[in-house]
Formats: sequence, structure tokens, C-alpha cells
Amino acid sequence: MYRTHTCGELRATQINETVTLSGWVQKSRDKGFMIWVDLRDRYGITQLIFDEERTPVEMMEKAKTLGREFVIQVTGKVIERESKNTAIPTGEIEILVEKLDILNQSLTPPFTIEDKTDGGEDLRMKYRYLDIRRNQVRNNLIFRHKVSMEVRKYLSDQGFVDVETPYLIKSTPEGARDFVVPSRMNEGQFYALPQSPQTFKQLLMVGGMDKYFQIVKCFRDEDLRADRQPEFTQIDCEMAFVEQEDILKTFEGLTRYLLKEIKGVAIEKFSRMTYDEAMKRYGNDKPDIRFGMEFGELNEVAQHKDFKVFNDAQLVVGIAVPGGASYTRKEIDALIDWVKRPQVGALGMVYVKCNEDGTFKSSVDKFYSEEDLAKWAEKTGAKAGDLICVLSGETTKVRAQLSAFRMEMATRLGLRKSNEFAPLWVVDFPLLEWDEETQRFHAMHHPFTSPKPGQMELLKTNPGAVKANAYDLVLNGNEIGGGSIRIHDREVQEKMFDYLGFTPEEAKAQFGFLMEAFQYGAPPHGGIAFGLDRLVAILGGQETIRDFIAFPKNNSGRDIMIDAPAPIDKAQLEELHLKINL
Amino acid sequence: MYRTHTCGELRATQINETVTLSGWVQKSRDKGFMIWVDLRDRYGITQLIFDEERTPVEMMEKAKTLGREFVIQVTGKVIERESKNTAIPTGEIEILVEKLDILNQSLTPPFTIEDKTDGGEDLRMKYRYLDIRRNQVRNNLIFRHKVSMEVRKYLSDQGFVDVETPYLIKSTPEGARDFVVPSRMNEGQFYALPQSPQTFKQLLMVGGMDKYFQIVKCFRDEDLRADRQPEFTQIDCEMAFVEQEDILKTFEGLTRYLLKEIKGVAIEKFSRMTYDEAMKRYGNDKPDIRFGMEFGELNEVAQHKDFKVFNDAQLVVGIAVPGGASYTRKEIDALIDWVKRPQVGALGMVYVKCNEDGTFKSSVDKFYSEEDLAKWAEKTGAKAGDLICVLSGETTKVRAQLSAFRMEMATRLGLRKSNEFAPLWVVDFPLLEWDEETQRFHAMHHPFTSPKPGQMELLKTNPGAVKANAYDLVLNGNEIGGGSIRIHDREVQEKMFDYLGFTPEEAKAQFGFLMEAFQYGAPPHGGIAFGLDRLVAILGGQETIRDFIAFPKNNSGRDIMIDAPAPIDKAQLEELHLKINL
Repeated sequence: MYRTHTCGELRATQINETVTLSGWVQKSRDKGFMIWVDLRDRYGITQLIFDEERTPVEMMEKAKTLGREFVIQVTGKVIERESKNTAIPTGEIEILVEKLDILNQSLTPPFTIEDKTDGGEDLRMKYRYLDIRRNQVRNNLIFRHKVSMEVRKYLSDQGFVDVETPYLIKSTPEGARDFVVPSRMNEGQFYALPQSPQTFKQLLMVGGMDKYFQIVKCFRDEDLRADRQPEFTQIDCEMAFVEQEDILKTFEGLTRYLLKEIKGVAIEKFSRMTYDEAMKRYGNDKPDIRFGMEFGELNEVAQHKDFKVFNDAQLVVGIAVPGGASYTRKEIDALIDWVKRPQVGALGMVYVKCNEDGTFKSSVDKFYSEEDLAKWAEKTGAKAGDLICVLSGETTKVRAQLSAFRMEMATRLGLRKSNEFAPLWVVDFPLLEWDEETQRFHAMHHPFTSPKPGQMELLKTNPGAVKANAYDLVLNGNEIGGGSIRIHDREVQEKMFDYLGFTPEEAKAQFGFLMEAFQYGAPPHGGIAFGLDRLVAILGGQETIRDFIAFPKNNSGRDIMIDAPAPIDKAQLEELHLKINL
Repeated sequence: MYRTHTCGELRATQINETVTLSGWVQKSRDKGFMIWVDLRDRYGITQLIFDEERTPVEMMEKAKTLGREFVIQVTGKVIERESKNTAIPTGEIEILVEKLDILNQSLTPPFTIEDKTDGGEDLRMKYRYLDIRRNQVRNNLIFRHKVSMEVRKYLSDQGFVDVETPYLIKSTPEGARDFVVPSRMNEGQFYALPQSPQTFKQLLMVGGMDKYFQIVKCFRDEDLRADRQPEFTQIDCEMAFVEQEDILKTFEGLTRYLLKEIKGVAIEKFSRMTYDEAMKRYGNDKPDIRFGMEFGELNEVAQHKDFKVFNDAQLVVGIAVPGGASYTRKEIDALIDWVKRPQVGALGMVYVKCNEDGTFKSSVDKFYSEEDLAKWAEKTGAKAGDLICVLSGETTKVRAQLSAFRMEMATRLGLRKSNEFAPLWVVDFPLLEWDEETQRFHAMHHPFTSPKPGQMELLKTNPGAVKANAYDLVLNGNEIGGGSIRIHDREVQEKMFDYLGFTPEEAKAQFGFLMEAFQYGAPPHGGIAFGLDRLVAILGGQETIRDFIAFPKNNSGRDIMIDAPAPIDKAQLEELHLKINL
């Protein structure tokens, strides 16, 4: 036993007890005749004291050698502290050290182990084990643990069974790129790492498991966007004998439970919105509904005047920025520059100041009368003092652009409060989405998603209009979960593969086991998966998932701490029947 | 909602209620005027009844078409059953069906979905989703879930934090073969899948996480022995500021808790034994101590007579088989054949019958007197009526052979009771073991294990004698967990790598990050990992881990249900900068 207590637990009630503590030297103040050391561990900080009058000379000398991050063990008496520190729970006491052992020394860390560190992101990733000593990172990991535990508790209490599905599975051409794993024992063959346990959880439903969950790692070999990781964690769930409504209710329950247990927030209402409505009102399938600035479509009132830009546009749409009428010309120009950035891509922005006196002043005054602009204000819900910002162009693009602008303005205006939570179900997603690159429709969710009843026939005539039994749970502008009711009929699944361009042979080679399973009594079933990394970040009031992952990879998919990936031995390659082909 | 109740919950108190159930047709009995159907789901079986007098003709006709494993939904009234079935909880009632929907049909399953199935192992693995419908497999998976939940609850309550470590890490030459994952974004480079999160959990200790656990998949690309899986699950734990005793106490606590919560068994005492003692008394480092038949070494009393076989042997050792004196010559010959099987490999076996009258009758009567044999009986603890079985030869081999024989006899004699639990710590493992193939010493546990205090110097003079701060937890003859106190000093770790044959460059390339971490204040730390698959099997009173894995692989590492591994596209290979090299 290296300690009798942690560095976070001693209080005034323990004064006069002799205790042993172990931990790291957070800092030390040497006044010559007296030395104070802050000793830190996961649980807190306790002050140690050495002083000329009470401490033997040799120990004073030893104490003077203690540097930051040295690991030490001390035994001593708990005494009352002269100048109490009310900022920390142990602030009423200190330890008069009677025995000091240096368990390990430390070089000077490459960055300071403080709440506000001087280390840049790369340095902190390379020395992640030092970053983890910082309160913020450590607390994030402990917070993640707590969320995982509560998720498991809730689902288990609801009768869900945690079943481990395999990691070494089969590569499929559908969806994102797989990571593959060459097999030594099966020459020229490969396993794949799962992008999700989708087919396995469906097979568990066929197997009568009824309610399944798992907190599981998933893998996608995609070009990494900021804040994407090649390996990520999913709360994966599936239920049999359910309709969409049952799933929404069940996972409203989970979300409500987490918000209550973890954040102490009671949510009464889960809003619902169709995909089409979300796109129309917010330009986005994961709208942040904590604030307004809803889209006002202006085609009716802004077209057929002399303004060619609008007349040529598929969509003219605006939002009212609260209080924006007071922005200076310079400020407005900066906003216009913002929407013109390549990341947003708008060609320009029209604005209307809604003056306090009821008049309007716009950048298109030569085309529109006060009466025209009053109609814009009505459509966008603008009030006196607001600034109407209008974009126009091709519907999909302009919605994305205005949505990005809306979020940016909300952030600037402080409307995205990290302690406010507004969950929203977005339902009735399209079954398919058009892919420009391959010039064909792909499954929007995945090929196992069932179309809405009676819409199978629409596939032939108007595929883009087919809606699916698919839903996303959105929290504060982030998709935290998504799922669908699955196809459980072999023929329908076959038709779907056919529609998606699989030959019967391909469908059989890839998913024959699933279609075969559907022949032996597959129940109706559906499920959902939550992205744990993001869920934890949002519950933690932050948006960067990397801060909630113990050992994240960088944007090139590298672990810069262990320096992976890395070349492997020639012998190892040969055993795997592989050659590098550069 | 496809149901108001499950098939396991209706009782006599619900008589006259109208309910809706969904499930699978377990079986149906058609007496023409009356049809009974057993409807099954995860929770139980409920009897449905259709009868001419009360059921409309069309529904009678429909009910007649129901085959085994059809998925149906019924609504009807709960009525009292005429002939009650006390064997099932729902046996007092049945459902008089008023509405019948066939949700999905089923082909005749390839094997019967019954407790005693007619399906062979391969067939059941190919159709694992049907096997999971069987009570035994489903209950095993639910049992596993329960064990996992309890493990997490206990460790979390003890302050352990569940931290997810990465799956895409770096290949290391030490230990078993890695599965590797080619990186598309980093040409010619590979990730490896972890054989365990060993270095990451040590870095978490360096990072001050103090107590870590994780239930985590691990991967080993080894030639598969029976009942080994290329992917397996570990309960992985690490603690800082601990000595061996602290770890043993902590995980005695976990094991005691599991046995109590899961099995209702209160364990008072955890036996302890050194590795050397275990080898001497049981010929094995994971002895089953639920029964005796301890080894008696006979060199002293059996050598230096005229029996050359024994005189030439490094070790002469026997066990007393209870009641074996009554075995016929034929039975004894069969035992001798058993130890001569290639899997055991003994050249022969000497036996001594300890007759009830106190006399002895042996296969070596011409070399040994009754007095000699009495000494053998004393050394092996044989009583009147026992059979002493003696093997001889090279110590390591003969111990393994006699240990296999001891276990076989215990199984035959019914001494390995599945509801009896005798945990045992085996401690003081050797640090190194000799490898015949490479003709050098390797780390027995792994290169991060610390030698016993003061034994580092022995490495130079008598490496095989160096003992480690390493321990295994053995339950009923199975190693369920193993761990060690780790090296936390950079210099010691460097020396260890040097001793194990790493050049400084290799050590740096592979484990530089760990040795660097040790320079920044690494605390003393140690840990343990439990094999969850085996732990669950043993707690479940069985020994085949495959029965406790939802989707296991076969002995060639194949998933025969999904047919993986499999070839991948040429395009996929090219993207990964690889060529197949057959």
C-alpha cells in the first residue's frame, strides 16, 4: 500500500492523524526555511509542508530537489493550515511531512500540467499521457465513463441484452470504405472491420434476442474531416416486434434519463419534424432549435421584380438576425465576406435593415419598395431592429449556405447555450439520395432500411420521393443518433438490392446470409445507433469529440504518440501473402 | 406495438383480459376440431388455442397453415387452461385467438429449435441466428450480459474508470502474431489490432488515471487450438500506487462478488500457491484444487533399485486414484493407452494397486518389495483401495503428462463439479521462459513485467531462476486472469529490452513512447486481465467458450455464417497499395 488516503480526501476532521499519500508534485514553493509542495493525484491536491524547525535537515535538502511531476510518497501528520484555501476541498489542512520517498523523478514536461496549458495540440497529442494529467482531459474521460455506465444501466433495466458482435467480419462495397485485415490462414483473403454491427444486430433479432444493445467500436476508412476519427464508438441498439413509434419512445426514454442523471435537466417535450420540414425551416436535417431565425422563403414576394439574381434563382430565402439593424456597413460587409468564404460558398448576400421606426433600408432598394420589404419581414418573422439576410440560388446549396450562416450568427449572438438542451426527432427521411459522382441513387441510411408502407412502387417512377421509416435524433444542432425500421422480408430486400444496382450474384455473395436468415421467420424489427463520442461531447457542453477520446488520432489518421501506422517486417508481409505495391 | 405482453408473462390473474402477443410458432398440434399452438419468444412460451366452436372457419384454415418458426401476431382472450402445464410459468392459461396475422413465414429450419437439437456443430454455426433461438444458447448470451454488467458495476463502484483504448495501434514483434490493417492514407504502412491494451493502460497510469478498467476485444493471429478464437474479450484492469498484495485483494473482491451475485456462492478463502509449488504438487500452473490426487515425487524411494526406466528418469512421480485398486486389468490397460496417446505422450505407466488388505500389487513387482511400495503409497497419499499411477521422464514433460492424467481421472470420477468453485492465486511466476525454437529466453508474461525486488542481477547468472511479480487467478483448473506489477523505471525497462534481445534502436522504435513516458513521473503500477469468454463459461458451469460467444469463428478462423474472410476487389487492393503474393 503506497497510501492510506488519496490527495482529495483529507479534511479538518482528520487533524492529528498520521497519513501516507502518494502522487505528483504539482508545484513547490521554497522559502528557504519552509517548503510547500502541492501533491496531486486523480482525486485532488493536498498541501505538504516541510519546515526548518520541525523537519530534519536531510529531508529539507531532499525536499528542495523535488521538481514538477516528480512522483513521491510521504508520511506525515495532518495539521491545520495557517492560511486556509477555500478554493479546494482539502484547503483546511496540510501534511507536516515526516517521511519522504521519491518514487520516480521527472524531466521537465514539454508543456505545463495546468488547466490553462502552454502546450499546442500536436504536442499534447504526442504526450497524451501528460495531457491526461490535466483536470480537463481527465474529467472528460471520467465523464465519458459515467455516461457509458448510465447508458448500460438504463438499457439493461429496460430488458436490452448487451451482446458482443464480431470485429473480424466481411468487406462490403456498400457505404464508406472498410478497413481490411489480411488473413494469414486463408491465403489472399481478408476480414473487414465493421463500419457498424448492422447485419449482426439484425441477425440477433432473427435469432429472437428481442432487444439488443452494445457500446461498440466502429471503423471507417474515410478521408478524415476535422473532428472525424477512423475508429469511433457507437451505442448500437435493435428491437424486434416494434414500429417506429416504439423506437422513438424507447430512446426518448434513454435520452431523457441521461439528461436527468448526467446534467440534472428535465426534458418535457421531444419535438418532432419531418425531414422535409427541417430542410424548409432550417435548411438542414439536424437543426438547432434552441433559437429561432427560421428560414423565410421569399420566392413569392421577391421574384418577378427587376432583380435578375433573384428571378433566376430556384430558391430565395432569408433569416432575420435579431438586433442586426444596428450593424455598421463594415460589420455587414464582414458578414457578406463570411458567406462568400469557400467553406460556405455563397456568391453574395442581400440584406434588409428593419429600422426601429418601421422603415426598411436594404441593399436592393432600387428593385424593391418599402411594401415589398415589409412582406419579406413578414415571411422571415423579422421585427423592428432585426437584419434580414437573404441568399438565393439552387435550393440544396442555398439552404446549406444559409443554414451555416444561421448557426454562425447564433454562435456569435450567444444563442447556442451549452447548458440548454433541445432534443428533436427528424423523421421521414428520404430512402435514397442522389450521388453526383456515380450519377445514381444510393441508400441514404443503408440498404436495409424499409420504405414507408406502400411506397415501394414509387421506386420505379420517382425514387427521390420515396420516404423511409428512418429517423435521426438531433440534439442542439448535432445528429446524436439515427436509425430505421428494417426490411424483414426476403423479397423486399432482394428488390432493394436490385434497385441499388447489385446483381443477384453480388447481393448473394455479400448479403446472402441475411436474405437466407429472412426465410426462417424474421420478425419485424428496427433500431438506432448513437454516436457516443459526440453524445458525450455535447452532454459535456463541448463540440470537439477529440477531447473526449483517451487516445485520439490526428487528421491523417495517425496516432502520433505511438507513431502508428508504421511499416511492418518483410517476413510478416510474406506470411500474409502480400507485397507492397507503391 | 406488436404486442401488449411477452410470451412469458401471462398468469391466471390475467384471465379474461384481451391481449396481443407476437412470436414464433414453436409447434402446433392439429386435432381437426381444435388446434393448439405454442408461441415462443425470448421470454417464454404461451399456448394459443383455436377451436371449431369458437373460432371462425377462415381463421381455423389459416391456423392450419402455420408451420414451425412462422412469425405471428395474435390477439385474443386469456382463458383458463383445461389441462394445466406446471412445467412452464404460463401453464395455467391459454389464449383463445380472435385475430391472427402471419408476420413472416419460415422454411423448415435445417435443425430443430429444441433444447436437444438434431443439428451438428457446423450446421448450427452456419445458421447461428437459428441456434440463438434455442434456450441454451440464448440463455448463455443473457448470462454473459449479466456477468459483464456485474463486472462493470463492481469495478465502477470501486473507483475504476472505464476508458476506451484504441483498436488501430502499432504492430510489435514481441509475443503472439498481430493482425494488421493496411493504411490507405499512409502508403505501405500498417496498423495492428491490439493483442491487449497493455501499453495504453500503463500510459493511463502514467497519466494519473489511478484505476482503469475496460471490457475489450483483443486479437491474436495464432494457429487456432480447439476452443481458441482469433478475437476474444478481456476484462482489462490497471491500478497505480499498488503492490502485488493490493491487486490480489482487489480482484479477490471482484471474484467473490461475481460468485455471490451470479452463482449465489460465498467463497471464504482464496488459496495461494507459488508457481513452483503448483508445478510440484499438480504438475501444472493452473491446478484444479477442488479435489486431491496431488503429485507424490518418488525419486527418493523408487530410484537406485534395478528398474532402469526409473533410474534414468529426471522425475518419477505418481498420483493415487481413489478406488482404482478395483480396476480390471483391461481397465488399467485402457488407462495406459490413454497416457500413451499422442496428445499426452507418455511412454508407459507403472501402477500399484493398494489392496484393501494392506498388500500391494504392482506392474513392477519384480523390482520393488511391498515395503518399497508402501513408501510410494505414503508419498502419494494412497489409501487402501486406491491405484497409484506413476510416470517418469524429463521433469517438464512428465509433469504435464501426469497433470493431464489427473484431470482426466477427476473428470471420469465426477470430481470436477460444475457448481463448486475453488479459486486459487498462483504467484511468483518465473520472469522468463526458455523457447526451444529460438534457443533463448522470452518474457513469460510480457516484457513490462517487473522482476521480484533484488532479482535483476540474477538475470546475468541464472535467468531461468528469476521470479516475477506476476500472478494468475485460477478457477477450477482454468486460468481466468493473469497480471503483474510492471516496470515503471526507464532504466530497468531498457535493461529488460536489452536482455530480451532488442537492440536499442528496436526498443526505441517499438516502445520508445513508453520509455519516454517513464521519464515524466511514472508511478508504481500493476494490473490484471481476465479472459471474459472463459470466465463466463466457467461461471456458467461449462468449459466451451464458443457456447458463450454470439458469433464465434471455427478452428480455421472462419465465420462460416457470413463466409469471412473473403477475397476483396482489385480496386480495393490497389487503393491500399497492396498486391497478393501467393
